[in-house]
Formats: sequence, C-alpha cells, structure tokens
Amino acid sequence: MPSRPGSAYEHVIRVTWGDCDPAKIAYTGRLPGFVLDAINAWWEEHLGQGWYQLELDRNIGTPFVRLEMDFKAPVTPRHRLICHVWPSNLGQSSIGFRVDGEQDGRICFSAQTLSVFVVADVFNKRAPPDDIKGLLQPFLEHAAELGT
Amino acid sequence: MPSRPGSAYEHVIRVTWGDCDPAKIAYTGRLPGFVLDAINAWWEEHLGQGWYQLELDRNIGTPFVRLEMDFKAPVTPRHRLICHVWPSNLGQSSIGFRVDGEQDGRICFSAQTLSVFVVADVFNKRAPPDDIKGLLQPFLEHAAELGT
Amino acid sequence: MPSRPGSAYEHVIRVTWGDCDPAKIAYTGRLPGFVLDAINAWWEEHLGQGWYQLELDRNIGTPFVRLEMDFKAPVTPRHRLICHVWPSNLGQSSIGFRVDGEQDGRICFSAQTLSVFVVADVFNKRAPPDDIKGLLQPFLEHAAELGT
Amino acid sequence: MPSRPGSAYEHVIRVTWGDCDPAKIAYTGRLPGFVLDAINAWWEEHLGQGWYQLELDRNIGTPFVRLEMDFKAPVTPRHRLICHVWPSNLGQSSIGFRVDGEQDGRICFSAQTLSVFVVADVFNKRAPPDDIKGLLQPFLEHAAELGT
Repeated sequence: MPSRPGSAYEHVIRVTWGDCDPAKIAYTGRLPGFVLDAINAWWEEHLGQGWYQLELDRNIGTPFVRLEMDFKAPVTPRHRLICHVWPSNLGQSSIGFRVDGEQDGRICFSAQTLSVFVVADVFNKRAPPDDIKGLLQPFLEHAAELGT
Repeated sequence: MPSRPGSAYEHVIRVTWGDCDPAKIAYTGRLPGFVLDAINAWWEEHLGQGWYQLELDRNIGTPFVRLEMDFKAPVTPRHRLICHVWPSNLGQSSIGFRVDGEQDGRICFSAQTLSVFVVADVFNKRAPPDDIKGLLQPFLEHAAELGT
Repeated sequence: MPSRPGSAYEHVIRVTWGDCDPAKIAYTGRLPGFVLDAINAWWEEHLGQGWYQLELDRNIGTPFVRLEMDFKAPVTPRHRLICHVWPSNLGQSSIGFRVDGEQDGRICFSAQTLSVFVVADVFNKRAPPDDIKGLLQPFLEHAAELGT
Repeated sequence: MPSRPGSAYEHVIRVTWGDCDPAKIAYTGRLPGFVLDAINAWWEEHLGQGWYQLELDRNIGTPFVRLEMDFKAPVTPRHRLICHVWPSNLGQSSIGFRVDGEQDGRICFSAQTLSVFVVADVFNKRAPPDDIKGLLQPFLEHAAELGT
C-alpha cells in the first residue's frame, strides 16, 4: 500500500452505540457513509463548500460512479475514527478520492471512490470549473509522487 | 457483464423520500445498505436464518472484508428497487455475493462483496458449517456456469 | 389506550441486523424512521403519492412539527414489524397521524405526529387541497368514533 | 419555555448533504438520532463512558421509554448544529434528558426523553449506581431551579 500524502485531511468521527450492530462493532452498512462524510469534509475544508453548497449555490454535482472498500479491522466507539482523505486522481470530468479509516493507530478500512462532475440540474457531465481544478492540482501532484 | 443466474433471489426495496438527498435521488451512502439488506434477505430466504439468527443462535458471523460497487443510474422512489442477489464464490472460509439493483428495467448499481466466516464470539476465521456449504453449492454451480 | 380504527393501514417492515445495536434490539434512533416510513406508506397506499411525489409533482410538503413516541417493548429481527398507521386529526392546515408498531402480537411502540401542509417551494402554510381533504375525511370519522 | 441551565453540555454536529432530503433540509427521521447522539455525548463528557461502555463494561443499559420532539425550524448544512443537552429529572430507576438543537442562534428543535436504568443482560429495571447518582445530582439541582 502506497503511503498517503502529508497533505491528506484528517476528518474525525465520533463512533457511537447507534453505529454498532449486535457484533458490538460499527455496522458495515455505516462505513461507506463515513467515507462519504470524510470526502464532503475535504471539500468543506479546502473549497469552503461541501456538496450541499456546490449543488445549491453553484449547480455542480459530483455523483459517485464507483466505490471500493477493504475492511481490515473492526471500528468501535472505543476510539475516535480518524479518516485520512485525499484526492487521488483527476480526469477530464472525474475526480477520485482515497480514504483510510484509522482507530488507535490501526487502519480499519481503506476506500477508493470515483465521481463525475455534472451540471446538477440536468445531470450532464462537465469539466470541473477552474477554481476547483486549480484547488485540486497541487494535491494531485502530492498523490502522484507517492503513486497512490 | 455476465448474466445473472436464474436462481438469483429478488429482494424488493421500497425507496422513500427519506432515502433521497437534495439531488432528489437516493443518497449514495444509503446504497451499500441496500446491498447488505439484499444479502441478508438471501440468507433469510434460503437458510431461514439471517445474520441476526446466525450470530445469536449459532455463533457464526460473516463480516465483510471487501465491497465493490458501480453506480450506473440514479435510484428514486418512483419505482420499487429490485435487488437481484446471488452467491458468486465460496472459498475455504469465505463467501462472495453479487447484487444488481434494478429499477423500471434499468440496472442502477452492481455490487460485489466478500465476507469471511468467523466464530462470532472470538472473531476467528472458520470454515462454513456443512449445512451452509451444502446450501450454497448448487447456487455456486449456477453462478460458475455463467462465469459471474 | 383507545383501539385503532379498522381502516388503519398495515405497513410491514423487515427489521434487520443492521437496525440493531449491541443490546441486540433495534436502535431507538431507528424507530422514528420506521414511524415516518409507515406514514409515507399510508400516503402511497391511499393517495397513490408519497412525500416524494407530493413535493416534486404537486409542490406540497408536510413537514413535521411534533413527534411523540412511547417505547413499550424491544423491536428485533425475529418477527416482521407491523406498523398500524392512521390519520387521527385534521386541522385547517395540519394533519396528525398515529402509528402503533407491533411484533408477534405485542405493541412495541406507539407514536403520534403532527405535520403542517405547506407550499413546498416557499415553505408557507396552506390548507390541504380538496382531493386530499376528501380522502382524509372518512378516515378521520373512523378515528373520531374511537376517540383516538 | 424555561431557560436551560448554564451547565448544559454543547454537542456540536456537522450536518451534511447526506442528512438532507429533497426539501433541502435535514430529514425529520434523522433528527431523533441527533438527540440521542447528544445524550450519549453528555455521558461521555461527564461520566467518561457512553452507552457502549456502560453496556459492555458495566452491564448497565438505559433504554428509552419516551421521546417527545417539537420541530421549530429546518436544520441545514449551512451551519453547525449545536445540541444543548442536560439531565432534567431523575427517578428511582429513570432519567430524563432535554435537548435543544440550535443553528445560527435559532432553536430548530426541542426534545424531551425518558429512559430507565436496567441490568443490561437481563433487561430488568434497577436503580442507577451510586457514582452515576452522585454525578447527576448537581445537574438536576440546576435544572430544578429553572423549572425545566
């Protein structure tokens, strides 16, 4: 596994009782939601706009076309869940993210996503606007150097 | 894409308002939960026991180690969501499922999962018990013929 | 507790592993969602339109202003959850529903809600349209006779 | 509405895209979950143990028997949701909490809950243990002075 770039954003999640199933660990069906929360938090942190603002204020959507997740260790409420999240590739009209979920120094899951940029109200593919392309570029160079 | 076997189980989901996000389609973070519901329904239908009964009554768990999903078309409350679900491979101590989500004749998503059988209370890998192996075998032959 | 009217609609929910918490019963935080699903199913059954269609096709919203729930017995995946749902009062611009959740012949929870009708895109109170008023009237007479 | 005590705990929630429905506001079915998260956070903050630790490490459960919520204004991802949470009454074997959800200086919802203390593995009512009674007492005096 290639290391993650130093510029990865850390999104912290307080895992709770209600996230857990009778096996006393976070239910698998919740974990993709944590991944998405982490990606949305990346946008909020770096662009100052999450999916909500992108869609409602700028008519830009980023629907997912693919999600891959490896589940490596159980997630529990015993520790905060640190989601390390970073953009890993940028296409003409697509953006990929990687998210590593970590608890108590151990990787719990590792995810890879692919989304496309769309004009939100008509759901047509589009290139990302210049400010977003400009924002993403340096992060992607970090990722590329590491081969992620 | 290889066709699905005729023995695939159809799990029907009533998608609702509360599953949808401001883009007016089911939120991506909900879709993996639909996939898991479909797999659990497969167990209930064919074994007469879902994950709850397996864990509590038989001390058998099947935690997921991998999930892959392709999102092909939006899911909405306009139609029922038919999840076609079938076991696609069986290892020494692992089981894979495939799930195709369909609405109004169109594939909305396609998922592949891998789980391991464990002794639930100690979380150690184990082979599936004979009744489960026997149950799965004929389904896997169907899947194998189709190369899924 | 007054009996429920014979015209109450039965919405059936398949409770699953993923709905349960480490106490091995459905997580309390999920139960209000079941109540809402039952009310939405009432609309779908009787009006042929749920909240999604009401909002998107008719510009009518019914946001909740109040929810009361009594939790009487645990909900588990051992039995289907039957949600008995009926409209219990109709004001100038408001509608109340009652929902009883039952498993294996036992009431698990009992809920009461109050919603207001609004013009969806401006979120202003309005009276319900005539077809909806006409639809609700006979149900409310049933409820009134029982004093619910 | 009586003012809340100065000792109320502030639990901050980052509302996201995925919490919202097509009306572009947080789905009503999610809001009770926020109330529960706030109460669990109160326990974590003051006792150093949330429901997960109470159940698994001390065999103490606090199942809910009642929830009341008034929804006063929409919740959106535009602002953090501040949940003010405080214990409001303590019975022989019961504990009540109040939670006010606030965004941008406006109360969005107000909730009242009642739970009972139980021996977790047998689900029998019990009095709260002395350390918990001692912890709660001063908070309840604050609440009592305000008549909440």
